[in-house]
Amino acid sequence: MQRAAPQEFDRVLSSMCTVPHPDARAAAERFLAVNPGDPATYADVSELEAQAVATLGELTGLDEVVGDVDGDAGSDADGVGAAHGYITSGGTEANLQAVRAARNRRDVEDPNIVVPDSAHFSFSKAADVLDVTLRRVPTDDDHRTDPAAAAAAVDERTVLVVAVAGSTEYGRVDPIPELAAIAHEADAYCHVDAAWGGFLLPFTDHLWNFAHAPVDSLTIDPHKCGQAVIPAGGLLFRERAGMDALAVDTPYLESTSQASLTGTRSGAGVAGAAAALEALWPDGYRREYERAARVSRWFADELRERGYEVPAVELPIVVADLSTATFEALRERGWRLSRTGSGPVRIVVMPHVTREMLTGVLADLDDVR
Amino acid sequence: MQRAAPQEFDRVLSSMCTVPHPDARAAAERFLAVNPGDPATYADVSELEAQAVATLGELTGLDEVVGDVDGDAGSDADGVGAAHGYITSGGTEANLQAVRAARNRRDVEDPNIVVPDSAHFSFSKAADVLDVTLRRVPTDDDHRTDPAAAAAAVDERTVLVVAVAGSTEYGRVDPIPELAAIAHEADAYCHVDAAWGGFLLPFTDHLWNFAHAPVDSLTIDPHKCGQAVIPAGGLLFRERAGMDALAVDTPYLESTSQASLTGTRSGAGVAGAAAALEALWPDGYRREYERAARVSRWFADELRERGYEVPAVELPIVVADLSTATFEALRERGWRLSRTGSGPVRIVVMPHVTREMLTGVLADLDDVR
Repeated sequence: MQRAAPQEFDRVLSSMCTVPHPDARAAAERFLAVNPGDPATYADVSELEAQAVATLGELTGLDEVVGDVDGDAGSDADGVGAAHGYITSGGTEANLQAVRAARNRRDVEDPNIVVPDSAHFSFSKAADVLDVTLRRVPTDDDHRTDPAAAAAAVDERTVLVVAVAGSTEYGRVDPIPELAAIAHEADAYCHVDAAWGGFLLPFTDHLWNFAHAPVDSLTIDPHKCGQAVIPAGGLLFRERAGMDALAVDTPYLESTSQASLTGTRSGAGVAGAAAALEALWPDGYRREYERAARVSRWFADELRERGYEVPAVELPIVVADLSTATFEALRERGWRLSRTGSGPVRIVVMPHVTREMLTGVLADLDDVR
Repeated sequence: MQRAAPQEFDRVLSSMCTVPHPDARAAAERFLAVNPGDPATYADVSELEAQAVATLGELTGLDEVVGDVDGDAGSDADGVGAAHGYITSGGTEANLQAVRAARNRRDVEDPNIVVPDSAHFSFSKAADVLDVTLRRVPTDDDHRTDPAAAAAAVDERTVLVVAVAGSTEYGRVDPIPELAAIAHEADAYCHVDAAWGGFLLPFTDHLWNFAHAPVDSLTIDPHKCGQAVIPAGGLLFRERAGMDALAVDTPYLESTSQASLTGTRSGAGVAGAAAALEALWPDGYRREYERAARVSRWFADELRERGYEVPAVELPIVVADLSTATFEALRERGWRLSRTGSGPVRIVVMPHVTREMLTGVLADLDDVR
């Protein structure tokens, strides 16, 4: 099997990571040895984090509903504890922390969370880690969560209902206002996982964010479509009480508490996220969304012309029913491809996935099938 | 208050992070955009991780007791699932995962963990996250865990006994063979937190590792005294079953399961750890241990000569009873200092903390007090 050199993305088709923006890379290199988890020692990176959180608040409509998203920007006393969110190690930490906050705030015996079949496996991990029961809800024929099924699954022990805004496998957006209403009727919180979709959805008509629905928490990852470097996820809460529910005491640091799941955190991730957001929001992200949408529609049509079944492309993920033999032949040629849980191949049109690259995939496809 | 520029460590006295080795920095920059959490897409970094885990196994005596520490090195199918450990996001993830593995393996109702007062606050965080009860055990006059108190605290619901090898505040090493015996008598696991001390202890006579005692899991962080870049913690298990107890299914990746707490992980952290370990184990780490030991003994004597109370220096952390006014005056002059939970100031003699730097601290101290 051919191997791509590190950070060469020219054959990577199924990853949700991508080539970072040059400003993000430069900022990351400057902060590789800095720990945002110790804000009294490393104050500069705390200011960058507050700035990144504020921009994520703009991007997700949080600033429209709460005003001061970033809390005590520049304060080096309370760390992330005073803001409406923080830069996590990735989407898994953000999703896990959203479940943890809901579990801690509701405080019921034998808590459960209601999660669509289309949700990322981080929710299974969170359920195991946090000792909450996972209730799976089926998706409809178009891979969106069925609100009736979600309504049937909630009960008095439900602490959280999860909705997906840009699913990992099909790039679908759930009916988020309906799911938020179902959550709140059951006295549960509503979390939106926009880890991948969050940097694309602002340029669509979807209802997905804090301003569109009474969403309580949201995951949005700079290190995916935000073009930051790894590790940089994002977690935002409508209420600061969400962050408070995560805080533990920090006896030996000159800060009073810590809400993050990890202790020492990556300065490179935080500084890279701040730099990418500054460089790209909103125009750079809009241009990339429009490019990816065009390329993925074209690629879907090319596959359909070859007789493959390709579901409608909503966000730039193209799913096709390539045979296992074809899939394996393409991987043999060095294409980094993966399949959905049910079998079809998925191609994620990330910033590094160009029309030229996909023309190469089609040529190999014509050759091997 | 003066502020250090990013990555300038010339006034940082209380951090357990430090200037990375140049090889670690170079490797990290090469792998900033690579995700070790997706080994089928990014195979090179998986090999580096196996190599780092193997060296950590050497460093901690694990290879003496189990042989093949790194599992299927170079396999890109099973990811971290086949090895005896992995590179975590830091000590908090490693400690939390050790608690999780013990909880999942023992599977008792209302589990508890027995943790010394000297343990890092990540265990409080782990207890909240994992919904296990934290039982605190007092330390003796020299800040080491009292085995009699630990024996009194364990019961049939205890899943883990924690021992510290290089405590965060005083740099103390617990009586690890005794604590491991107490754990096993109660049918619980024994975890050693050597997050900070792990790269110093191989050059001492302490009994702390897998070969010295029937330790079940161990935390050792390359991004602390290992001189790697953030984020790079390390978690090792005596038995692979420890890793298996953490694994969840990964439906859409071309790997079968994932044991790490996070999903997407930092290629920079993994590659940086592998490079630092290759450059420094064992001679580089030995030289640095000897330097730090010398400098910290000298600095402790200088403080004692000025009338401060300074406990014996075991590993290179110097604790002194500076007054709050003196502490604050030193912070005003830009020294990045922090206090222990009970009040005294702690100075961690990391690789960047030189005799010259501490001479500057003493001059300022003489000036302000």
